[in-house]
Amino acid sequence: MAQAKDIAILGAAGLTGRELLRLLAGHPALRPVHLTSDRHVGQPLAAVFPELEGSFDLTFSSHQDAIPEGIPVFLAVPNQTSLELVPALVSEGRQVVDLSGSFRLHDRARWEQSYGLQHTAFELVERAVFGLPELFRDRIRTASLVSNPGCYATGAILPIALLGDLRTEISSIVVDAKSGVSGAGGRTEDAGFAFGSVYENFRAYKVLRHQHEPEIQEYSETGLNGGLGFRIVFTPHLLPIFRGILSTIVIHWKSRPDPERVLSQFKQATASEPFLRFRETPEDITLSRVQLTNFVDFAVRTEDNVSVIVSAVDNLVKGAAGQAIQNMNLMAGLDETLGLRSAAARLPVG
Amino acid sequence: MAQAKDIAILGAAGLTGRELLRLLAGHPALRPVHLTSDRHVGQPLAAVFPELEGSFDLTFSSHQDAIPEGIPVFLAVPNQTSLELVPALVSEGRQVVDLSGSFRLHDRARWEQSYGLQHTAFELVERAVFGLPELFRDRIRTASLVSNPGCYATGAILPIALLGDLRTEISSIVVDAKSGVSGAGGRTEDAGFAFGSVYENFRAYKVLRHQHEPEIQEYSETGLNGGLGFRIVFTPHLLPIFRGILSTIVIHWKSRPDPERVLSQFKQATASEPFLRFRETPEDITLSRVQLTNFVDFAVRTEDNVSVIVSAVDNLVKGAAGQAIQNMNLMAGLDETLGLRSAAARLPVG
Amino acid sequence: MAQAKDIAILGAAGLTGRELLRLLAGHPALRPVHLTSDRHVGQPLAAVFPELEGSFDLTFSSHQDAIPEGIPVFLAVPNQTSLELVPALVSEGRQVVDLSGSFRLHDRARWEQSYGLQHTAFELVERAVFGLPELFRDRIRTASLVSNPGCYATGAILPIALLGDLRTEISSIVVDAKSGVSGAGGRTEDAGFAFGSVYENFRAYKVLRHQHEPEIQEYSETGLNGGLGFRIVFTPHLLPIFRGILSTIVIHWKSRPDPERVLSQFKQATASEPFLRFRETPEDITLSRVQLTNFVDFAVRTEDNVSVIVSAVDNLVKGAAGQAIQNMNLMAGLDETLGLRSAAARLPVG
Amino acid sequence: MAQAKDIAILGAAGLTGRELLRLLAGHPALRPVHLTSDRHVGQPLAAVFPELEGSFDLTFSSHQDAIPEGIPVFLAVPNQTSLELVPALVSEGRQVVDLSGSFRLHDRARWEQSYGLQHTAFELVERAVFGLPELFRDRIRTASLVSNPGCYATGAILPIALLGDLRTEISSIVVDAKSGVSGAGGRTEDAGFAFGSVYENFRAYKVLRHQHEPEIQEYSETGLNGGLGFRIVFTPHLLPIFRGILSTIVIHWKSRPDPERVLSQFKQATASEPFLRFRETPEDITLSRVQLTNFVDFAVRTEDNVSVIVSAVDNLVKGAAGQAIQNMNLMAGLDETLGLRSAAARLPVG
Repeated sequence: MAQAKDIAILGAAGLTGRELLRLLAGHPALRPVHLTSDRHVGQPLAAVFPELEGSFDLTFSSHQDAIPEGIPVFLAVPNQTSLELVPALVSEGRQVVDLSGSFRLHDRARWEQSYGLQHTAFELVERAVFGLPELFRDRIRTASLVSNPGCYATGAILPIALLGDLRTEISSIVVDAKSGVSGAGGRTEDAGFAFGSVYENFRAYKVLRHQHEPEIQEYSETGLNGGLGFRIVFTPHLLPIFRGILSTIVIHWKSRPDPERVLSQFKQATASEPFLRFRETPEDITLSRVQLTNFVDFAVRTEDNVSVIVSAVDNLVKGAAGQAIQNMNLMAGLDETLGLRSAAARLPVG
Repeated sequence: MAQAKDIAILGAAGLTGRELLRLLAGHPALRPVHLTSDRHVGQPLAAVFPELEGSFDLTFSSHQDAIPEGIPVFLAVPNQTSLELVPALVSEGRQVVDLSGSFRLHDRARWEQSYGLQHTAFELVERAVFGLPELFRDRIRTASLVSNPGCYATGAILPIALLGDLRTEISSIVVDAKSGVSGAGGRTEDAGFAFGSVYENFRAYKVLRHQHEPEIQEYSETGLNGGLGFRIVFTPHLLPIFRGILSTIVIHWKSRPDPERVLSQFKQATASEPFLRFRETPEDITLSRVQLTNFVDFAVRTEDNVSVIVSAVDNLVKGAAGQAIQNMNLMAGLDETLGLRSAAARLPVG
Repeated sequence: MAQAKDIAILGAAGLTGRELLRLLAGHPALRPVHLTSDRHVGQPLAAVFPELEGSFDLTFSSHQDAIPEGIPVFLAVPNQTSLELVPALVSEGRQVVDLSGSFRLHDRARWEQSYGLQHTAFELVERAVFGLPELFRDRIRTASLVSNPGCYATGAILPIALLGDLRTEISSIVVDAKSGVSGAGGRTEDAGFAFGSVYENFRAYKVLRHQHEPEIQEYSETGLNGGLGFRIVFTPHLLPIFRGILSTIVIHWKSRPDPERVLSQFKQATASEPFLRFRETPEDITLSRVQLTNFVDFAVRTEDNVSVIVSAVDNLVKGAAGQAIQNMNLMAGLDETLGLRSAAARLPVG
Repeated sequence: MAQAKDIAILGAAGLTGRELLRLLAGHPALRPVHLTSDRHVGQPLAAVFPELEGSFDLTFSSHQDAIPEGIPVFLAVPNQTSLELVPALVSEGRQVVDLSGSFRLHDRARWEQSYGLQHTAFELVERAVFGLPELFRDRIRTASLVSNPGCYATGAILPIALLGDLRTEISSIVVDAKSGVSGAGGRTEDAGFAFGSVYENFRAYKVLRHQHEPEIQEYSETGLNGGLGFRIVFTPHLLPIFRGILSTIVIHWKSRPDPERVLSQFKQATASEPFLRFRETPEDITLSRVQLTNFVDFAVRTEDNVSVIVSAVDNLVKGAAGQAIQNMNLMAGLDETLGLRSAAARLPVG
């Protein structure tokens, strides 16, 4: 096999960075050679993450340390840090996959309101390609900056966008999404993510105010002249589990659709996609079947003027690190599925 | 204090029957004196449920054994058994609270389709009062047969029905409900409810096909001439916890409403209700605050032409046994809240 | 019924204080009238703990505010704060139940090493009575200062101490204890108690170094001349649940004992105890049967020269707040079980 | 790379068989070509286990169907079925790794009592090699029949057996083991393994009566003339999680040992072992660090005359399927670690 390609990870000690490392430990063609972390500068990787002992012999650098020349970069840093670091990386000519939310939206005011920050590098938004290969595969291949989708976005956008022209017949969309704690963005120090707050509990949060909502709106309209014409209602919830996002998407059609047309649209749109599994019934969709994998499982049932779609992803894999690697594979001219094929990764359970 | 009133429980060894016993162990004015169970005939209660040792000195009878004359009856038996037992109980002049689904729907064809049974006592449906005190308190007081709501129904119906005349301005309703396993109706023997199938997992089930949907539709329209005019979309999900149902109800209004009008309608409708707690924001609603209590907590946020309501109940208490006791309290002329006041019942957690 | 007795709770906003309030909400003869909290001075109780709305109309004071004259006090504060507050409370002639660890050990050096503090009120240790009613009931009745046991202590000490003279025939004791997070002492801010650190995980902690070990040693030897003659080995573990401690106690006997003698000793010692349930087999002991109750369930199996005892308590009830109320009941001349009788408090499950 | 070696799995649809398939999906040199199952004869693998779609294109045969000539066999069937199938497989000259308990014990009476069966193939016990490579690597390489250890055995036996000659100085051993439901042997239909019975619960089971106890005793004495001279006390418990076994092993020494001697013995014994990770402190051992891996993590603390060892394994990997593959690798002359190297397999959490 050819020599693996060197890459860097900035922000490698967070939840997403660690997941990148977990996945890259089994990747045959991408090899991390430079890791940064604010909190762990100078510490060996294995001292921070004992499970990676034996996989990589690396030490954390600071964000300011020189990155080996020319190598591609994954950024798994907070939004503000991304705004600070990305312009230089791009101007050096590096390929960048940014897992933050900084370059996802084309509406600057909307972005600044959603993220509560001033956008100091908005000129890069035009260059950035939204990192959803099922929608933007060709543009990703030649992109210098890929903006990786938010963890809620993939499972919500894809089943809507893949409806293609059928979208013009929709009158409303309600996305009710439920995420494990690793997708709900909680830092371990937050009391709201303490075991006693989450266990045997369930709640909605950021109702009508989640920062992924505009991104879901924008890319659900991809390729649709004039857009959907209404606001997608998005409600995130916190599941008392660690991994996985299940989204229940209720579509009201302007008039009663032919259920077969919906089915055949999805079958066709997913037929050659390596990571989309369109299933028979919504009851086939469970988080246990996607956890630790890069798959999006989804299915639909249509009755009267309503379609109910259920989709499932692992928020840390297809919702973050796995999708980032899929994007980097494309940018590097590699097989898109390299290092991501494991389909039977978690539980031998129902 | 006056002598407690004797009552019987038919089907006292199931999940709901056991919850009735747990609650009645602390009830000052209702005393179980006759319990039946198919599987445990002749066994002492404490041998089956050790936690009730010391509370009641009773032995399980069979459904066919004579019930002490004239005493009221709770039925916590399967639908078919309810159809077989209720007619005689009612004709004997007993007060009956039936926790099965047998007498909830006024549309016979709909009922038979939803429950997969032939209805052999449909003449009793007219006599039955739907056991939701917040809507039917006065009729419950004098009813001979109360049909206790399904566990999903209370948390879904109340926030809709309490909108009163505002309902005429609604164009669609989507109810996305998430229940712990005790509300999802699983028998312990079902593989789908084995620990390995539920833990760190999440899924939707019976999408557009749940038997509680017609009941939610019927009583959400209570007092509304001509009904809502559209089908409420109801999707149940299985949470990896034991107790509690959280419902996220998305209402699309025909035109942009005044958010204050929605708020004041709810404030007014709940002001004197002992078990409804209308909260400030949807983020205040968590299962941990209602588990083991008889409360319905809910809140609303309105933006554009959308209101999102989040409601929470304990499916075994306000969703089943607690509500049944509330109904029996009313039928017995007692204070409606007797035995149900415990407000701080589960966890000292967020 | 007679007027309820007023009491104060210092440190009412912590996990244990909140549990005291939960239990006192159903207590007919003790009424909190004064609550303190470092963090919540001036805030209404219901604003901090919404589930207690309607139970008590109180506002948090500071630890320094005057306590109504003469009323008894529960202290649920950290050890250092207890050392600072208890001397004045005792010298004012109040009855005090201290839930901290400050006055449990008679060996000063051992205490200072275990707790990492200097003991500034050691003269009170002699006055303090260890709050385990099953061992010290008569002394508690007349005590001015009761030192409530640590959460691990009750379930470990009782099965050993109740062996009485049989203890002289023991050659070693191994206590392997497993606690939910509420008993493991974690503050919600600790990363080790974040959901992601605890869920689907399990670990031992403070191996041979837990501060409850000396307390278990001292009171397991109660009434035994010369003590056990060996160190009890105590290993605590963190269960991925919220409530409950199960202890597995392995006793090696100097020579093969008569299993019946062990059984009859336990039967006799528990016969008239309201909160000890001695069960048939160790397999009957589960956390679900004691959660939210004040019971200690335990059982024993003896083979060869070994007895294995399994015991279960709710760490927040019999392991903390429930036991404190039981002690205060005794000090107030009330029925010891008042407010603590609920036997069927949690789940209708196996 | 050379052609992969064909193998068969008898009993491929159970929990352990499914785990074998999960692991073999990533194995470069072993390829399942023949699967059997009682319940699924004739069904395609992917219809039963959707997560394996794309990995293997196989259909379940019955146990009686002809197995391709000469290929090695994994047996993941119940004990009785193993007794029936193994003799013929061995006499055909196949290499067999049996994951049942049928051939683990050399004391026939003990086996028949522990397993409640008559042993109809006891002559094979002498030929069988106990499949713990760290103790029997060379014999496994040339074995025709390997008897794979019970899930509790590996984590209990290794830390004891690796003490070598130090074992002669031990006076007692107490093994307190805690297993997730997948290791506790429960079939999904058992009420004791229903979600409602396990969640937020914990209990001991088969106290002093678990069928793995004699196996732990026998192989903890490997290479020790005259054995330990006492009964190891083994208590299994059921954790409310899916995967993993943590064992707390308390050793009483005849006299106070030098802690450094214990440490150096373990360091030396594990130095060249690919799957044993001897850690600094018992607090470093958590299930999350071994789940989905083939590692045994363990550590020790010694004080006075006591050593406390904590060990952790994934019961389905190193406790069953992973170890079976490790054994088959050895029997096939392959690198022992092939297909088992993944060290970072589950959660990016503490």
